[in-house]
Amino acid sequence: MSAAPKVRDRGDITGGPVPTVLAVDAGGTSTRAGWFTADGRCLGLGRAAGANPISRGANAALTHVTAAVTRTAGPTGWGAGSWPPRVVVVAMAGGSRAEVAGLRRALTGVGVTGELVLASDLLAGYFSGASEPDGYGLIAGTGAAAIRVAAGVDVAVADGVGWLLGDRGSGYWIGSRAVQATMRALDRGESTLLTRAVLADQGWSPEERSPARVDGRHPAVVPLVHAFYGQDPVELARFAPLTLAAAAAGDRAAGAIVAQAVTELVDTLSAVLDRAAPGPIVVHGGVGAVLPGLADALRSRQQAQGWPPDVRESQHGLLGAAVLALRAAGLEVSDRIRSALRAGIANRAGPGEREFAGG
Amino acid sequence: MSAAPKVRDRGDITGGPVPTVLAVDAGGTSTRAGWFTADGRCLGLGRAAGANPISRGANAALTHVTAAVTRTAGPTGWGAGSWPPRVVVVAMAGGSRAEVAGLRRALTGVGVTGELVLASDLLAGYFSGASEPDGYGLIAGTGAAAIRVAAGVDVAVADGVGWLLGDRGSGYWIGSRAVQATMRALDRGESTLLTRAVLADQGWSPEERSPARVDGRHPAVVPLVHAFYGQDPVELARFAPLTLAAAAAGDRAAGAIVAQAVTELVDTLSAVLDRAAPGPIVVHGGVGAVLPGLADALRSRQQAQGWPPDVRESQHGLLGAAVLALRAAGLEVSDRIRSALRAGIANRAGPGEREFAGG
Repeated sequence: MSAAPKVRDRGDITGGPVPTVLAVDAGGTSTRAGWFTADGRCLGLGRAAGANPISRGANAALTHVTAAVTRTAGPTGWGAGSWPPRVVVVAMAGGSRAEVAGLRRALTGVGVTGELVLASDLLAGYFSGASEPDGYGLIAGTGAAAIRVAAGVDVAVADGVGWLLGDRGSGYWIGSRAVQATMRALDRGESTLLTRAVLADQGWSPEERSPARVDGRHPAVVPLVHAFYGQDPVELARFAPLTLAAAAAGDRAAGAIVAQAVTELVDTLSAVLDRAAPGPIVVHGGVGAVLPGLADALRSRQQAQGWPPDVRESQHGLLGAAVLALRAAGLEVSDRIRSALRAGIANRAGPGEREFAGG
Repeated sequence: MSAAPKVRDRGDITGGPVPTVLAVDAGGTSTRAGWFTADGRCLGLGRAAGANPISRGANAALTHVTAAVTRTAGPTGWGAGSWPPRVVVVAMAGGSRAEVAGLRRALTGVGVTGELVLASDLLAGYFSGASEPDGYGLIAGTGAAAIRVAAGVDVAVADGVGWLLGDRGSGYWIGSRAVQATMRALDRGESTLLTRAVLADQGWSPEERSPARVDGRHPAVVPLVHAFYGQDPVELARFAPLTLAAAAAGDRAAGAIVAQAVTELVDTLSAVLDRAAPGPIVVHGGVGAVLPGLADALRSRQQAQGWPPDVRESQHGLLGAAVLALRAAGLEVSDRIRSALRAGIANRAGPGEREFAGG
C-alpha cells in the first residue's frame, strides 16, 4: 500500500518511430497488463495472479508480472506487425528498488527490453481518474492511503502503512472494528444487526440471542477467538461489506464505524493537502467507491479551501498505469487518447479477450 | 488472558491429616510455584520460564510448570518431614481442558499425585487481593480482562480476547495507539513528546524535526514499517510505559490515549458488574497498577451503584493461586492464614530462596 519509489532502469530502447508501451497494474489480488500504441490503441491484455512482493513474495510477484506481460503479446509475439514496447511501467503496491533488477531480468527473458519504470500503484490510481498533472489520490481498499500529485509525480504520501500501524478508514479498519464491537456486545449480552451478521457469517444461528454462558462467557467467544487468530489479521477486512450493510440498515454501532472511517480518510487526505495546490481528488479502491458520505465529505474539504468541488471515482488501475506508460515515453495523453485507452481496455475485457485466469 | 475453565482431575489423594497444597502461577513471562501447609506456612518456592500454552506451546508450558513445581520441594523431595501436596492448583492464562491430561501425567512423573485443579489466572489475580468470595477482578497487563467472582468462582468474564479482537485499555492497546499516532504525526510533519520518544526508541535522533522527505514521506516511515511488521504484533505493548511517561509530561495525544484506556477498562469492568452483587475490585497487571486515574474511575463506578468505594491493587499472582489451592482443599482462608502466605512468599523471595531463573 505504501508508495513505491519511482525507479527507472533504461534498457535497450528498440522501439521504432511509432512506439508502443506496456502497462502493468500489479495488485494484491490480480495483475493486469496492457500493450498500447502511442495513440492509445490496445494491442493486447493479459492477466495473472496477484503480484504484491510483500504479501506474495518477490519470486511469485516476478512470475505473475511476467506472465501477464507475455499474455498481452499473444501467440504472435512482439514483432508481429507492431513495434516492441519502448517503455514498461509496472505500478506495484509494495514495490521497491529491490524489485527492479529482478523485473528487468524477467522481462528481458520474455523479449521485453524497453525502459522499465517501477511506479506507485497510488499514482496509477490517480491517473486512472484524472488527466491533470496536479491533484490528489485517495485509495481505500483493504488498506488506505492518500497522495498529492504535482507535475505528474507523487510528491507527498500519507498513511498506507498497513493494518498494524494505520490504514485508517480502510476495509481492514472497518472490518476489525466491527468484529471488536461484536466481541464487546457478546460480553454484554447485546444482540444487534451487526453482531448477528458477524455471528451468522461464522456459522452461529441468529436465533440464539441469549444462549447459556460457558465458563462465564457467550458460547461463541472462544470459537471466534480461535477462528480469528487462526488466520491472517488482514482477513478481517472481509467484514467491511457486512458492516456497510448493517450501517445502511440503521445499526448504530456499524453506523458509527462507517462515519468514523469517512472522518479518518478525510484526515489522511488532509495530511497531503497543499493549500496552494488545488486539484481534483480521485477516489479508488473497493471501499472508497461504496463508503457513504465520503465523496460529499471530500467535496466539503475542497470547498473549505476555497476550491471548486471535484471528486472523481475510478476502478481502472490499468488505465492509470497506461497513462503513466505513455507519459514515461514522452507522449502527451490527450482526452482522445485517454478515451481510446479506456475503450480498448473495456472492449478487450469481454469473453474474447486475450486473458487467462491462471497465474 | 481468557479465563481457563475450572477443571478438576481427582488424582490419588495421598495427603495425611495435616495437608499441604501446591500453587502455581503460570504466566506468559514466568512461572512461580509454592508449597504451603494448611496454616499458610511456605515450605518452598520454585520458579521457571513462562507457561502460557498458547504463546509458548503446550509442551513448553508443561515442562516449565513441572520444573517450577519440582523446585518447591528442593533436594529433599516431598516426603521429608511433610505430607505430599493434597491439591495442586495451576492458575494459567490461556489454559484449557486440553492441558489437564498432560499436566496430570507430568506432575505424577515428579511424584505429585494430589488433586489437580486448573484455574483461571484471572481468579488467582482476584484472590491475590481479596478474601471475599464475591467481588470483581480487573487485569491490565499486556492484555486486559475483567471477571465477576461469586461464591469464590468466576461466573462472568469480559474481554481478554487478545490484541486483535479486544484487550481494550491493555498495554498492547496503549502501545499500538501510541505508535499509530506517531505514524500519523510523521505524515503531518508534527513533532511531539510522544513521537520523539517513539522515534528515539527506534534509533532516530530527536534533532531531526523536519528532515527532507524520501519518496514523499518522512524518512523514518519505511524503516519503522519494516521494523514493526518484522515482529510479533503484541510487542507493541512495549511502548505503553513510554506513552504513560509522555502523558505525565503533558503530551496531548499520549494523554488522550491514557484517558481512553481508563474509560475502556471501566467499560470492561462494567460488562461483568452485577447491580445486586457489590464487592471489592482487585486491579492487577503491570499497566493496571500504574494507569493514572484508573482506581479513582473504578471507585466512582462503585459509588454510582451506591456501593462503598473499595478498589485494591495487587501484584502477587502466586498468593492468589495459594488461596485457591487451600480453598480447593476444603480449607477456610482466614486473614491470619493470608498474612502467613504473604509473608512466606515474601521471605523466601530473597537471595536465599529455593528458586532458579532458568527454564
